[in-house]
Amino acid sequence: MKTLHLDLGERSYPIHIGRDLLGRNDLIAPAVSGTQVMIVSNETVAPLYLAKTQAAFSDYQCESVILPDGEQYKNLPTLDSIFETLLSHHFDRHCTLVALGGGVVGDMTGFAAACYQRGVPFIQIPTTLLAQVDSSVGGKTGVNHPLGKNMIGAFHQPRAVIIDTDTLNTLDDRQLSAGLAEVIKYGLIQKDDFSCWLEQNMDKLLARDPDYIAEAIETSCQCKADVVAADEKEAGVRALLNLGHTFGHAIETGTGYGNWLHGEAVAVGMLMAADLSMREGWLTPNDVKRVEDLIDRANLPTRAPASMHYKRFMELMAVDKKVRAGKINLVLYRALGDAFVTDEFDPAKLEQTIEAHRAISNDQE
Amino acid sequence: MKTLHLDLGERSYPIHIGRDLLGRNDLIAPAVSGTQVMIVSNETVAPLYLAKTQAAFSDYQCESVILPDGEQYKNLPTLDSIFETLLSHHFDRHCTLVALGGGVVGDMTGFAAACYQRGVPFIQIPTTLLAQVDSSVGGKTGVNHPLGKNMIGAFHQPRAVIIDTDTLNTLDDRQLSAGLAEVIKYGLIQKDDFSCWLEQNMDKLLARDPDYIAEAIETSCQCKADVVAADEKEAGVRALLNLGHTFGHAIETGTGYGNWLHGEAVAVGMLMAADLSMREGWLTPNDVKRVEDLIDRANLPTRAPASMHYKRFMELMAVDKKVRAGKINLVLYRALGDAFVTDEFDPAKLEQTIEAHRAISNDQE
Repeated sequence: MKTLHLDLGERSYPIHIGRDLLGRNDLIAPAVSGTQVMIVSNETVAPLYLAKTQAAFSDYQCESVILPDGEQYKNLPTLDSIFETLLSHHFDRHCTLVALGGGVVGDMTGFAAACYQRGVPFIQIPTTLLAQVDSSVGGKTGVNHPLGKNMIGAFHQPRAVIIDTDTLNTLDDRQLSAGLAEVIKYGLIQKDDFSCWLEQNMDKLLARDPDYIAEAIETSCQCKADVVAADEKEAGVRALLNLGHTFGHAIETGTGYGNWLHGEAVAVGMLMAADLSMREGWLTPNDVKRVEDLIDRANLPTRAPASMHYKRFMELMAVDKKVRAGKINLVLYRALGDAFVTDEFDPAKLEQTIEAHRAISNDQE
Repeated sequence: MKTLHLDLGERSYPIHIGRDLLGRNDLIAPAVSGTQVMIVSNETVAPLYLAKTQAAFSDYQCESVILPDGEQYKNLPTLDSIFETLLSHHFDRHCTLVALGGGVVGDMTGFAAACYQRGVPFIQIPTTLLAQVDSSVGGKTGVNHPLGKNMIGAFHQPRAVIIDTDTLNTLDDRQLSAGLAEVIKYGLIQKDDFSCWLEQNMDKLLARDPDYIAEAIETSCQCKADVVAADEKEAGVRALLNLGHTFGHAIETGTGYGNWLHGEAVAVGMLMAADLSMREGWLTPNDVKRVEDLIDRANLPTRAPASMHYKRFMELMAVDKKVRAGKINLVLYRALGDAFVTDEFDPAKLEQTIEAHRAISNDQE
């Protein structure tokens, strides 16, 4: 097991990464406050890992709530079902919530913890690669609104993140690839040497070689922890972690939450950002090809849905947390491994990028 | 105009109290960030004061959302309607929300501001006495759940509180009395000299004498500001502000939100706390009579609904933010003007208190 530390003063917490960690009550005990624990999971993850996780909480009053699985359920009504369970079990404000699942479970559990009785602690136990390398670290929590992704939420840091890499053994290939999108992201925004490592070792990651998977997770979590420690509330550098996300959120909202996985949409978005950066003269065609190859080798899509025309993209990208005074801000590339946020790009070039990365027919999606 | 200051470091803010303040853009400008302003009001207050308030925001893109009026609408679906309006107007995370109304509007607007795009600023413009002396100051925001009052929320401080005492001219008598309950509370918890002042001047307050009303608001806001500055997140002394609220919330939840006004329920609760403190030997019968007379003279109820039996109270009081490890904590009195939080009281005496303060028939409610 390896333990990283996210340094946020009194809100600092450990990120434990290793095999067979689910039942480790020694990792959990320092992060629990009170005597009541509510494990929030979903119908896919609970049959696999709930019993093992509960065993680590045998010293507490441990209850659970099982949510439906999918981004389409990351909304206020599902959140309310968590509150309903907490209240019907008379959970007080000294309880602890535990997120056992992927990014959707983690985001909702964290937001429920932020709001229940005006704030209770929570622990992240991510079971998808995407949640392990990205969403479980950093305290961004929330739910979607039909009009925009992640529009309702809070910054609320977990007390600990416990990453049991054995849980990836049951992850399906599509979800594994979606997680790799966020791994690739760290290389593209600030670590070109990590991009090179990924280019060399993508086959080992897809084959789930435990050592390479662990190294990818550790590098990703360290990168995320460094960025969040420097800018917890996204006043500056943290915005770089949104590479590909403005395009990606538009795809997710435009296709109906749950049809595209978050990582899939981000993958296309990172490529579109590269293409626009090339049209602006900052990247070479060869740079763009490197991005496209990396995404393609991770078995991720490189084209947006055929239905997502320029106008539809623009409507949806107008609802983005980086919009300021009506102007869309995008994370683009000065070079590979050197991303920056800007609203200074040519709208005509953006239109060319979007049209060039739209599937010709829906069969391609 | 008088300006008090709530000292919370970088989250400090002014509390302006005076006449004819609604249109004062000089008070508003320092508290607005960005170019977009959303005024949240309700169907009762908006026809009276929305136009005048909007005039102060003429330099901004100013939109409004009008909610139904009443505690029964302080819930997640109404909150969602605020998000819907913000998103459909493309409000970005540099916008400012403004609460124009009573405690329900203030609590929901503040919570919407806490959650919209993970947090935007807001301004409190309270138009009921209750909101002016209590709920607009201190940053407690939230909504009710069918299973418990104020169970979902956040600590989110406003950028300014603007109390235009002229708005009380249109307040109905029942709402005025409900506000006086929270005024009386400050005297009972820590300022017996203020209780004496209220005993002497209750008739002038009920007659809405502007000078006496202003003095009552200033004293109340100063007391609230001092307590919140000492204990923003209610780790200690702030809990005293919940005098009467555990009983009161049980009445509000038990009778269906909106049938009893919050201040009415708190009034009975403060008397019940006095009665229990007497049974425990901390107050004299004469002390209890002083509390009852003060509440009665403010035209507030002194009896809980006939339907609220001991068992029903206990069920509902088990869902309270001060519950810890299954034990109910109550704010009781060592003496008048000297409240404290305790879980050490005799349950048999609590039952006597509840039964002694229950109306004999529902006609009395």
